[in-house]
Amino acid sequence: MKLNPDWVAGFVDGEGTFYVGINKNPTMSSGYQVLPEFRVVQHKRDYKLLHALKNFFGAGVVRVNHQDRYELRIRSLEHLEKLVIPVFEKHQLMTQKQFDFIKFKKILSLMKNKEHLTKDGVIKIIDIASQMNRAEKPIAQKAKQDILEQDKVHA
Amino acid sequence: MKLNPDWVAGFVDGEGTFYVGINKNPTMSSGYQVLPEFRVVQHKRDYKLLHALKNFFGAGVVRVNHQDRYELRIRSLEHLEKLVIPVFEKHQLMTQKQFDFIKFKKILSLMKNKEHLTKDGVIKIIDIASQMNRAEKPIAQKAKQDILEQDKVHA
Repeated sequence: MKLNPDWVAGFVDGEGTFYVGINKNPTMSSGYQVLPEFRVVQHKRDYKLLHALKNFFGAGVVRVNHQDRYELRIRSLEHLEKLVIPVFEKHQLMTQKQFDFIKFKKILSLMKNKEHLTKDGVIKIIDIASQMNRAEKPIAQKAKQDILEQDKVHA
Repeated sequence: MKLNPDWVAGFVDGEGTFYVGINKNPTMSSGYQVLPEFRVVQHKRDYKLLHALKNFFGAGVVRVNHQDRYELRIRSLEHLEKLVIPVFEKHQLMTQKQFDFIKFKKILSLMKNKEHLTKDGVIKIIDIASQMNRAEKPIAQKAKQDILEQDKVHA
C-alpha cells in the first residue's frame, strides 16, 4: 500500500496526535522527563494501514493502544526531526492541529539545544506544551509547580 | 483555504462518513425512505474548515451536529453522484472506509434506477446498507421485517 503524502497530511489532520508528555523521572536534574510523541490510532480493522504509515515515515512501532485499537507511535527525537516534521512542513495540515504541530516543532528544537535537561528549559517546554490541544494541563502545571518548589528548597 | 484533493481523501478517510438512513415514511409504497448522506463532523474550532470542504465539493450545508460539534452534510442525490463520488473515485480512500464508499455508490446507483421506490428495491438497499460500518443494523432489520410483513398482509 503506497501512500500519497497529501493523503497522509489529511489523514493525520483527522487521526494524528502531536503530544508532549511531561513525566516524573528522578534521574533528570529537573525531576521531569520531556517525551514528545507522534501517534496515529486506528481500529484493528485498519492495522495494515498503520504499517503502511510506518513504511511511509520509515520509523515507529505499531502496537496495541487500547482494547481493539492499535497505534503507530514515533518517539525517537531523530526520527521525529528528520522523518516526521519535514512531511508536514511540505504538506501542510489544514485543521487547528497545525498549531499543535508548530508547538511540537518548537519543543523539538528546544530539545535539540538540550534545553530539556535544565529546569528553566523544562519550564519553558511545559508552558508551550500546555497550549497544545491534547495537553494534560493539570499534570503539566503540577510539574511546573514542583520544579519551581525545588528551586525554593535549594535557595 | 484551498484544499488539495488527496488531502481531502485522507481527511475523509479519518473523519468522513458515508451513511444510508432507512427512515419510516408512510408516503412511500414500501413505508420506508432511503436517505444516503455524506457527512464530516468537526469540533467548532474547525468550523472554517467545514466551509472550505463545502466549497471544495461545491455542495452541502454546514450545521450544528451535537453540542460543540459542527458537520458538513451532503444529501442531494445529484450532488452526491456528481460532486462527491467522483472525488473518491479519483483519489482513493485507503482505510476500510473504502468498502463503505463502494456500498454507498452501489446504493446511489440503485436509487438512480428508482429501485428505492419499490419494496424489493428497498430490501435490496437495506441488505447492502446493513454491511456498512456505521449501519444501524437493528433498525435496518426491523424495516426489512416490516416490509416483508406488509407483503404477507396483502397476499
